[in-house]
This record gives sequence, structure tokens and C-alpha cells, in this order.
Amino acid sequence: MKNPTAAMIVIGDEILSGRTRDSNMHYLANKLVKTGISLREVRVISDDQKEIISSVNELRKKFNYVFTSGGIGPTHDDITADSIARAFKVKIGVRSDAKKLLEEYYKKNGIKLNNSRIRMARIPENAELIENPISAAPGFKIENVYVMAGVPAIFQSMVNFTISNMKHGSPIKSKSIIVETPEGEIADKLASMALENPEISFGSYPFIRDGVLGTDIVLRGHDSNIIEILAQKVEESFNVKTENKDE
Amino acid sequence: MKNPTAAMIVIGDEILSGRTRDSNMHYLANKLVKTGISLREVRVISDDQKEIISSVNELRKKFNYVFTSGGIGPTHDDITADSIARAFKVKIGVRSDAKKLLEEYYKKNGIKLNNSRIRMARIPENAELIENPISAAPGFKIENVYVMAGVPAIFQSMVNFTISNMKHGSPIKSKSIIVETPEGEIADKLASMALENPEISFGSYPFIRDGVLGTDIVLRGHDSNIIEILAQKVEESFNVKTENKDE
Repeated sequence: MKNPTAAMIVIGDEILSGRTRDSNMHYLANKLVKTGISLREVRVISDDQKEIISSVNELRKKFNYVFTSGGIGPTHDDITADSIARAFKVKIGVRSDAKKLLEEYYKKNGIKLNNSRIRMARIPENAELIENPISAAPGFKIENVYVMAGVPAIFQSMVNFTISNMKHGSPIKSKSIIVETPEGEIADKLASMALENPEISFGSYPFIRDGVLGTDIVLRGHDSNIIEILAQKVEESFNVKTENKDE
Repeated sequence: MKNPTAAMIVIGDEILSGRTRDSNMHYLANKLVKTGISLREVRVISDDQKEIISSVNELRKKFNYVFTSGGIGPTHDDITADSIARAFKVKIGVRSDAKKLLEEYYKKNGIKLNNSRIRMARIPENAELIENPISAAPGFKIENVYVMAGVPAIFQSMVNFTISNMKHGSPIKSKSIIVETPEGEIADKLASMALENPEISFGSYPFIRDGVLGTDIVLRGHDSNIIEILAQKVEESFNVKTENKDE
């Protein structure tokens, strides 16, 4: 059985302009790998309706799940919900269940529920709400697309809420072996090991640390026993003395 | 005159699996904004030939420049150069100018130039080399596509080398105003300011700091005088007392 696949769409001019360094992608990637959902592509696009519509429509057909982050707040540049409704060709309007969540939260906190805030209760028809335990304004799920906030703390809690309700796959195990040798020294041997063990992926990631070129070899697959055996072989082949850790 | 546009393709299973947090996107975004090149899209894709080919072919038609990072090393999982050659339907082989760079560097450092390393001299026909002052193995430019290393230090030096030779646009100026008020309070006023000043983009980015919801309002445009005037208006409208800085 193959693992489910996923894509992420980061909606945000602030990432593309270099103002903000995105952290949601890294958070989601780590969560998905543990649940056996294979993240295959991430797109960072600008706050532009056409771009949102075309990315969503392309990726929701290509992958089992699509996650979006950003653009569901109360300001004029928050156009994600409307764009998603257009992508699915469904109506969008203030929904009473979403409005109720806002009313309760704002009442409790003594905040006025003004027109801008009511915008955050605009939810496409037939979408299911995604809880926001931090500031109430919900995300939503429509078919296989999960629309979530961009603020990291809210994004993270929405991811945790949704992921527990999704179909999981078989988690990918991995082991990293740090070799203090440049890739060019070990490439031949590593290639033949990879060829002999097609069920395990052999990643080779060069790094520079204190001016020294080294390689981080990462074995990935479903069977942790095989990974363990191959990791030992890798360590013996390349005379690794350092401690390595499971991931 | 419109600013040139760009896209970036990050090639790397290690990013999608959550093992590594990408830093090259943020670096490039910051460099481009200063040179007036508008970064419109970033894609993170896996080490997969089909994905590389289709992304490169789609984005190089859509934008003035495409930058790639990752997958040009000596190991079996480094498939970027071959994939790019396929995307452009050109031949690829070991090129003498690239091989010479490697020979000189390895000779100077007393390292053996083995077959794996010679792979790094495989360059598509008609591509121009991009210097690598750190470990010699070059990147390359083919038409409007710039193919660079994934190791951050090398990526950064390649970006600096290439960007100095590119057609620049008019740099985007920006100013950020931190308002310690949630977006929902200021959305109405902000929307009318944005509507009245279509030449300036008004971004609104919510944040949570020490449990307090606030908004970072970012004004962007080409004319720093107008930005300055509008920033003052924003500060007056929302009673900002904190210091704000130009970016």
C-alpha cells in the first residue's frame, strides 16, 4: 500500500519579499513524515487570486491532500477563502457556525465583533471548519484541501487538529550517518549500496562545518531493521567513529 | 517599466522530509528585493527527474529568471544537471572548461579527481558556468535558468556572482510599522488607505508576541517619499508610539 501524498501552498508576499522566513513548511514536513504522509511539493505564491486558484486546482488533482497557509485574516489582503471558493466554484458567505465561534470568543475577551472580523466567518459552502484554539477564527477543509492560518502558532494548532483526523500511512523511518569525508570520496560505494537496496532511499547531503567538507548520509524506508543493518554497513565502509542518532 | 520577475526551484527531498530547514529561499528573496527583481514563486520539489523537468519548463516560460538550488553534487542522487539538459532538449557531457576548474582546485588541495567528482563537470551544451569559489564545482546558466548548489555557503556565493551580471529593476522600498493592536481593529481604516493609494502595497501581518496580538503593517513601493508620508499617516491613525525602521 502506498502512502498518501500531500502538497503545501504557502500564500504570502511576505515570504517572497524576504521579509519573513517561513517556518510553517518545516513544521508541516516534520509532522507529515511521522504520520506516513508523503509531502511531495511546496509552493510559495503571492497574495494573488489567480495564482491561488491555479495552484490549488493543479495540486488538489495531483496529490491526496493539499494544505494552505496564510491569508485568512480580517484585512483587505486576506483573499484566500474567496479564492478557494472560486477554485471549487462554490458560493461563499458568512456562516453561522463560524460566526458563533467568533462571537463566543470575542464576548469572552471583551472585544467588539466588527465587520472586518466577521469577514473571518466567510466560509465556502460545504466546507468543514478547522478549530483555532488560539484566536477562534477557524480554518476550513473543502474536499481534500485544508485551509489554515499563516501565524505559526495558529497554523501549528490547526495542523495538529487536522492531522489527527486524516488517513495515515506507514511512517517513514530514517537514520542519519555523519561522515567527515566529502561526498566525492564516497560517491562510488554509496551508489552501489543504493543500487543493491532499492527499498531504501540513500540520500547524500554535503555540508561544510568549521571549514571541513563532510557528508550526511540519510537512509529512509519503512523497515527500521533493514535501515539499522545498512547504517552499520555504511559506518563500516566509511570508518565512521562519531555517534549517530535515529531520527 | 516593469521589474523583471523570477521564480526559484528548491530541489531537495531533505527539505520535504523535514530533515533540513531550507535557508536558500530566504537568502535569495532578500537579495532579489534589493535588486528590484520580483520573486513571484518558489517551488520545493523532490529529487525526481520528471518533476524537475516539468517545473523548469513551466516556470522558465512564465518568469524572466528561474533559479534552482540543489542536486549538482557528485553522488547518485544528484540529478539536476541531467534533468535540466532534458528540459532544454540539449546534450550533456563532461565539459573541458568545467573539468579544468576541478583539476586545478583538486590539485591545489591534494585531492584525487575521481570519476564521481568528474560528474560535476557534466554541463549542458551552450550553458555558461557559474563560479564556485568555495569548492570549485561550478553551477551553470542556460538561457534564463540559473542552476546552483544547495549547500548554503556555495549557493550564496553563486547568487552573488550571478546577480551582479543580471538586469536589475527598480528596487522595492519598504517600511514596516508595528502596531500593538490586532488586525481586526485596524482592518477597515487600513483597507481604505490601501484603496486610496494603489501605487503602494499595504501588507498586514498579524503576530503574537508575549501573548499579545499585534499587526506588522508593511508598505512597499518604488517611491520612498510616498512611503514615508503614508507611514506617518498609518502611525497617526493607529497611535503608534514604538520606533519603526526602514528595511
